[in-house]
Amino acid sequence: MYIDQVKQFATILGNLDGCLVKAVAYAERKPFDVSVLLNARLFPDMFPLSRQVQAACDAAKFAAARSSGKEAPKHPDTETTVDELRARIRSVVEFLGTFDAADFEGAATRLVPLGFFPGKALLGADYFTRLATPNFYVHATTAYDILRHNGVDVGKADFIGHQLPLRDL
Amino acid sequence: MYIDQVKQFATILGNLDGCLVKAVAYAERKPFDVSVLLNARLFPDMFPLSRQVQAACDAAKFAAARSSGKEAPKHPDTETTVDELRARIRSVVEFLGTFDAADFEGAATRLVPLGFFPGKALLGADYFTRLATPNFYVHATTAYDILRHNGVDVGKADFIGHQLPLRDL
Repeated sequence: MYIDQVKQFATILGNLDGCLVKAVAYAERKPFDVSVLLNARLFPDMFPLSRQVQAACDAAKFAAARSSGKEAPKHPDTETTVDELRARIRSVVEFLGTFDAADFEGAATRLVPLGFFPGKALLGADYFTRLATPNFYVHATTAYDILRHNGVDVGKADFIGHQLPLRDL
Repeated sequence: MYIDQVKQFATILGNLDGCLVKAVAYAERKPFDVSVLLNARLFPDMFPLSRQVQAACDAAKFAAARSSGKEAPKHPDTETTVDELRARIRSVVEFLGTFDAADFEGAATRLVPLGFFPGKALLGADYFTRLATPNFYVHATTAYDILRHNGVDVGKADFIGHQLPLRDL
């Protein structure tokens, strides 16, 4: 299931990219400067949209890297435009695409050190399900919520995706 | 990993319950009627807080029930107070607590019918990772975002939890 979830992070990041495209069209139509949206927050001490996207990207890439023992690509959080944020998303989606199921053999029992808590670690299964996955979804959803809150015409299907592999019953 | 994720849904619902407790204290302190918060939305065509909590509860209970072939308890969405929402959360957390790993044997390849799309189904693995889990997190996170947006003093650690099972390196 690790590889399924890593692919799912890529899917949601791609969907978030689609929401950003809609945000640009909305800003042009009104019109207003789309950077206002990138700096929009739901509350003064929350991250703005741009930082929510960066944080979702980081959560996904570190979930994959730390659960597999691979090195994550570096992203210094310098994005200030939609195009740069979209390039950041593309870079992470590409990185996630390099993984296959074999990369996560033993992931559940691997000890994952916590950068924000020196000397401490989580068991891989706990890290992935209890920290990395909710951390990813908190930031990805809040990015989406900021767009909705500001009137961008996106809905839950844009976030979850329109391409679910349906089967006949 | 199904059982881990089902336990995780219960954890996040418990954390959301803690956020509701903080919301009540905040409303009493200001003071304002906490039902204003329950009816708060991030945008007119989004669910209010109460419905976000109900939807997160449903996503979690259906994820567990449909992936295991068990019957989910019924909840007719009649909650109008924080106490009733907290009881709803308790009921779902209790239900999630009845599952163990054996309940999810074969879950990945089970066909899960989609109520909103008659005649169609998803493979269990797709249902769980690509629909149920993001659906849960979208509603749980948006509930949290509505609280933050309205000034309730909660942070990401309240959402993800303060009780991660840390290990020494």
